[in-house]
Amino acid sequence: MSVAEVPRLGRPGAASVQAGRDALAGLLGADRVGTGADTLAQHGHDESFHPPARPDIVVWPRSVEEAAGIVRIALEHRLPLVPFGAGTSLEGHVAALAGGISVDMREMDAIGRPSLDDLDVVVQAGATRRALDARLRGEGVFFAVDPGADATIGGMAATGASGTQTVRYGTMRENVLALTIVNGWGAVVRTHSRARKSSAGYDLTHLMIGSEGTLGLICELTLRVRPVPPAIAAAACTFPTVAEAVRCAVAVAQYAIPVARIELADELQIEAINRHDETAFEVAPTLFLEFHGMSEADVAAQAQETAEIAAEFGGGSFAWASDEGERRRLWHARHRAYDAARALKPGSAGLTTDVCVPVSALADCVAAAQTDIAEHDLIAPIVGHVGDGNFHVCVLVDPNDAHDIARAEAFHGRLVERALAHGGTCTGEHGVGYGKARFLAAEHGPAGLEMMRAVKRALDPHGIFNPGKVLG
Amino acid sequence: MSVAEVPRLGRPGAASVQAGRDALAGLLGADRVGTGADTLAQHGHDESFHPPARPDIVVWPRSVEEAAGIVRIALEHRLPLVPFGAGTSLEGHVAALAGGISVDMREMDAIGRPSLDDLDVVVQAGATRRALDARLRGEGVFFAVDPGADATIGGMAATGASGTQTVRYGTMRENVLALTIVNGWGAVVRTHSRARKSSAGYDLTHLMIGSEGTLGLICELTLRVRPVPPAIAAAACTFPTVAEAVRCAVAVAQYAIPVARIELADELQIEAINRHDETAFEVAPTLFLEFHGMSEADVAAQAQETAEIAAEFGGGSFAWASDEGERRRLWHARHRAYDAARALKPGSAGLTTDVCVPVSALADCVAAAQTDIAEHDLIAPIVGHVGDGNFHVCVLVDPNDAHDIARAEAFHGRLVERALAHGGTCTGEHGVGYGKARFLAAEHGPAGLEMMRAVKRALDPHGIFNPGKVLG
Repeated sequence: MSVAEVPRLGRPGAASVQAGRDALAGLLGADRVGTGADTLAQHGHDESFHPPARPDIVVWPRSVEEAAGIVRIALEHRLPLVPFGAGTSLEGHVAALAGGISVDMREMDAIGRPSLDDLDVVVQAGATRRALDARLRGEGVFFAVDPGADATIGGMAATGASGTQTVRYGTMRENVLALTIVNGWGAVVRTHSRARKSSAGYDLTHLMIGSEGTLGLICELTLRVRPVPPAIAAAACTFPTVAEAVRCAVAVAQYAIPVARIELADELQIEAINRHDETAFEVAPTLFLEFHGMSEADVAAQAQETAEIAAEFGGGSFAWASDEGERRRLWHARHRAYDAARALKPGSAGLTTDVCVPVSALADCVAAAQTDIAEHDLIAPIVGHVGDGNFHVCVLVDPNDAHDIARAEAFHGRLVERALAHGGTCTGEHGVGYGKARFLAAEHGPAGLEMMRAVKRALDPHGIFNPGKVLG
Repeated sequence: MSVAEVPRLGRPGAASVQAGRDALAGLLGADRVGTGADTLAQHGHDESFHPPARPDIVVWPRSVEEAAGIVRIALEHRLPLVPFGAGTSLEGHVAALAGGISVDMREMDAIGRPSLDDLDVVVQAGATRRALDARLRGEGVFFAVDPGADATIGGMAATGASGTQTVRYGTMRENVLALTIVNGWGAVVRTHSRARKSSAGYDLTHLMIGSEGTLGLICELTLRVRPVPPAIAAAACTFPTVAEAVRCAVAVAQYAIPVARIELADELQIEAINRHDETAFEVAPTLFLEFHGMSEADVAAQAQETAEIAAEFGGGSFAWASDEGERRRLWHARHRAYDAARALKPGSAGLTTDVCVPVSALADCVAAAQTDIAEHDLIAPIVGHVGDGNFHVCVLVDPNDAHDIARAEAFHGRLVERALAHGGTCTGEHGVGYGKARFLAAEHGPAGLEMMRAVKRALDPHGIFNPGKVLG
């Protein structure tokens, strides 16, 4: 049984697939056109337990020109086209629901030399977040969007990803300056100049970000990078309740403290991290904090103000990460929260929710989720990008137990309903895929969805780009 | 003679206009349906000297429902519909090139109570920037986008406006959370939830921002506000050359100093400000700076670091604005740079350019502009949002002298050509209107323009929204 309704879409006929395969082999050579069973299976699923769906063909382009050639072949033979990055998406984004071509972007992983004047860097879509981190580290700059997974940068743009530093530095929307895409006619388009800002025509960059491969194929990205702050400090602080931790985060924002990270983990998540990462955090609702500043004094002042606010909400004293190594371990543990959560129940899979609400409603929404979890006897740790109003409940389920999945799914539905009632969204950063398509009507209403459908028809007139995703 | 090619568009027939007028009078009452010659003339032009074009009818809606009714009447009678705010646009945005209905939004000027938890506020499209400033001042928060003119917030969203604080706080794109619009079918759509971020479907908010009334009618906006910084300080610093001032600004960004404003004025602009505002700034290339911090010490540290960098580029000592009154006067003078410039040549109009280039190319582009100005004997002061790579040359012309206008226009063409060659854009913040439509093909290429046209056709299938703008 599925947690989400799998759209029933037709698949291309064998003759079209064969013709497309021949044309792709002519373009790329036979060794970059995969049709083996293992290859197809690997490319049909992501990290979620939504039912996978195999493509008919997998290809590995190495240049924008090759990517454009692939799109033109897909257009000619009316073959669906599903971009594939690291396969770390959580809503079935890469499942080839209507078969066709999976475009594995991982051989397009070049990372250019960052410009230290312009504070930007050009990367290909298949470069991963960690590879980019490593490349930038020696240059004194960093890329600020850090989802938990080691996703590809193209995939992060496609889902509108964000991360632990979004509270200060924004999501992919604020950190992608321009994209090079192949559009629905097979043409290469650069969506924006290299200027920091522009009012010259419609914002194709933001239209592509979060469109999950349904409007075009993202090939290259110009990213905004930032100077590594001269001083950084990280700390953990426990609170009597999750609600108090959340209220502390809201107050920190009100006082204009430019906190770089302010992340919530509930007791169960802390327990999971301690077990999985062999850490020894106090088991209590916790805020993990990071401060970036121009100097040690600057960071100390931010921390001091934050500590005073935390104390008002019952927060304990700050447990500081003593050096860069410890700091990295702290955030590594946070980034692996999903793995840690799953280890609480061996053999389980996680249904990870992603609602985002106005921060004024966050404490109530988290508390309601906790009550719901307790009432329905679920195992479901919580983490949250609380500065943004975004939190994840990871409901552990036996992926082979339909009843278990149905219970988790019912919880998810109630959670989203509460979020929407509070003016929130069903997904803050994971995207829709086909796993959340059923929530879009309630969130956007028929007129909003109709506008999105009109855009889809206009930019993908032949309906080849990732069918069945986002709009179902 | 026009500086821009005026699209030749058909106008609706008299019968359609009469029928639309009757229907509008039925909806709004006759007193909010204007057809007097003065009213029509006032609504046919903005602050530019692009040839005006009168609408056939002017209406003043007071609610989203009335705005939707107006759009439905426009659809029924196939009447073009041009949103009108403060009339401060600079590229002929509000000219009714195909006649029809000018929708004056100024009676929809309500400003809601800001949420201090969520740091947002809901405003109607006709509220002006200064009215919003005044409303927020007592609440301890501010809205960060500050173009020179006292534009309406709806108009600022429509053009993708920015301002002097964009270097730190972003443009309208980063400061509008959600819009309530009337779409091309006459339906009311809220483009986004109240959550800080979302990945739930296509980004209609950003698609509308910068679309200049060509994709729908913006009625209400949810804006991001920010706490007023506890400490603020402003200063002016002169440099031997414009290029050195620009290089200083680039270095300040590289050192991650979170400067809130860093604005260039060249000698001629300083002279203009001194004359117009009776100030006594030293006549030299100048950076106007502002620092926002958590404390006086924080601001002092930022200023100290900046002063050290400035000294490396030949900058003089900082002339500090001594108190809030002097600081406000400083920025008021900067905001009125356009008026000051025009006063250099009584009776003149200004052709204001708006290129934005990668900051690495900014010093060269400004220097090339200065050389060009000198070679062609133009009177043309320069101001720049140099932290963003955006600068304005205000070429003073006699609006009744075709030769003068042609020379200015030729200069504009060369300036844009250089900007595009450096990876920049023809407009950083003023938008396209019909004044810059001729540059879009060179900037976006045929495939990019075709995507924009497809979006236009999809969302405005009957072509009623602000015809002739953006895409020509």
